[in-house]
Amino acid sequence: MDALRATYELRCDASAAETRAREIALEQTAELPREAVARAGLPRDVVGRVESLREAGPGRFLAEIVYPAEVLDGTLSQILNVLFGNTSLQHDVALVDLDLDPAAAAGFGGPRLGVEGLRELTGARGRPLTATALKPVGLSAERLAELCRLFADAGVDIVKDDHGLGDQPAAPFADRVRACQEAVRQAGGRTLYVPHVGGAPSEMARRIAVARDCGVRAVMAAPMLCGLPAFHEAASGSGLAVIAHPALAGAARIAPEALLGRLFRLAGADAAVFPHAGGRFGFTLDTCARIAARLRDRWCGLRPAMPMPAGGMALERVPELISFFGADTILLIGGSLYAGGDPASRAKRFVECVRNAAT
Amino acid sequence: MDALRATYELRCDASAAETRAREIALEQTAELPREAVARAGLPRDVVGRVESLREAGPGRFLAEIVYPAEVLDGTLSQILNVLFGNTSLQHDVALVDLDLDPAAAAGFGGPRLGVEGLRELTGARGRPLTATALKPVGLSAERLAELCRLFADAGVDIVKDDHGLGDQPAAPFADRVRACQEAVRQAGGRTLYVPHVGGAPSEMARRIAVARDCGVRAVMAAPMLCGLPAFHEAASGSGLAVIAHPALAGAARIAPEALLGRLFRLAGADAAVFPHAGGRFGFTLDTCARIAARLRDRWCGLRPAMPMPAGGMALERVPELISFFGADTILLIGGSLYAGGDPASRAKRFVECVRNAAT
Repeated sequence: MDALRATYELRCDASAAETRAREIALEQTAELPREAVARAGLPRDVVGRVESLREAGPGRFLAEIVYPAEVLDGTLSQILNVLFGNTSLQHDVALVDLDLDPAAAAGFGGPRLGVEGLRELTGARGRPLTATALKPVGLSAERLAELCRLFADAGVDIVKDDHGLGDQPAAPFADRVRACQEAVRQAGGRTLYVPHVGGAPSEMARRIAVARDCGVRAVMAAPMLCGLPAFHEAASGSGLAVIAHPALAGAARIAPEALLGRLFRLAGADAAVFPHAGGRFGFTLDTCARIAARLRDRWCGLRPAMPMPAGGMALERVPELISFFGADTILLIGGSLYAGGDPASRAKRFVECVRNAAT
Repeated sequence: MDALRATYELRCDASAAETRAREIALEQTAELPREAVARAGLPRDVVGRVESLREAGPGRFLAEIVYPAEVLDGTLSQILNVLFGNTSLQHDVALVDLDLDPAAAAGFGGPRLGVEGLRELTGARGRPLTATALKPVGLSAERLAELCRLFADAGVDIVKDDHGLGDQPAAPFADRVRACQEAVRQAGGRTLYVPHVGGAPSEMARRIAVARDCGVRAVMAAPMLCGLPAFHEAASGSGLAVIAHPALAGAARIAPEALLGRLFRLAGADAAVFPHAGGRFGFTLDTCARIAARLRDRWCGLRPAMPMPAGGMALERVPELISFFGADTILLIGGSLYAGGDPASRAKRFVECVRNAAT
């Protein structure tokens, strides 16, 4: 049975494209010359099969390769490996799309809450959710909690740690999380405080447990920093909503929509942060539209997840962002709320702007 | 104190280089405009400092940025994040080198065995170690164990799983490891059988425990598949020798010598597999020399690790590989031993060739 389908973009001469596609199908599975595979006398063929190959532009080819279930073993690390393990070391190839047998996907589960669950958690209906970040690293837990309170008072739906906040001495994880969670509680609204959980697997688990004990209901982690399988294990075991951060995800030669929209969603992200076009990062509008589409489309029976455009979005762009992404979106505005020295009033404007857009 | 030093290659106009370098120093730490950081009134500055900037070629600049200890938190995920988290999302930047405060490095420990430990484990002195791989995926545990026995009888020092071997039904992990370990035991020599351990953190731990129970003394894992922090935690807790596999590591826009030679070593790799020049992958001889140098040099008080050139090395290249890499190297030849249908005699030639080279 075909369990996994990958689309690769090859950069090569037309005369070489078919050979390259076949080499990839072999490299990602048997990793032996074809004649040696034949001699091995396998009961079932394990080599990937090139299902289609077409020219996508001058010197650019799209090859669709399907891989049999026999090479998978129920782990995300093996899915990553079959998709792009060795081939990532070949500079003429990018992974641009992937699809999965729904039965295999069901084993991972995808978003536990997804769009609907995040709406229930925040009570935000019929409009995008608002989100901002606590920063900079170096502030004390008390100062971060003051900021958290200020954003909660302004009615921001989600106040997350900057992903650079870990367990630094200036604001140790447990102190910060306790103080910030207490701040949103005292604010009395439904603001979610979302701590960032990093570290090795045991440390992530410890931080998630600390957060849960403080009453936190959502956490953020960066799948490419901690490892996608570790992210999945932490997310699925946490019982919390989970936001995926794209740190280190930009340089994988995997199309962002495949990595963030498919693999992060498969691994359980209820929302995925990504740098929207026109900010400090280089994603195009098309890429961002595809990320959003792949987080929210019908796919493998998994719940839809929320796109969370960010990365230098100015408050002034909110109407444009809403018209681009629609309602099932979390608008993450960080630095622009801090600019000018009055984050409280900027946050209120942000919240009003999004609420007005809903009517 | 400066805890972490990163060198980035920027591709931009000369007029923009200094600004870009400063933006990176800010992006990787405070992630706020400089004026907002100033207003935050931090007790200590947390922003990275551009220490040098020089032109490396037309439109190419090398920027050295140092980061203060205040932004780190003792985790590898935060080191990765500060080095290249958000900046990985900016396509004009590559991470090309890094250095670490030895005190910070000591906390991670690096290779537990390293070059000397691997020599003790295998009894191989004064010459490169020989290694090959069990493949293809799809063979039964018994067939893989037969291959393992054949290579052990030939005197190969290290027989490792292909990294595509996980816990597939054709050769379940526990069955395979038991059978292969028994095969090297019966062979009576000092061949190390090295199973590949993948999966989410708990599954990796389970597989390592199974391997240890079978008497296995070394495992292989792929840091970029499982996550570098998960690799480190598994490696440092295993009590076994650990070989790092480069799957998914080729497309990180991090120079291979920085990723494999520095970060994999920091995370505890006793040996690191990489595709040598002239095989199926695109690394240059210079890159491979730098990887080897950074695995073995004096650095942060960490033990040297063994370079493990691979990726389509033909048996006929052994003399050239030895003269290039010297003795403290593991020569990994997989497919070339299988070519022609008589792996036993090819493996014997491999072993003799390396032993003769030592005299």
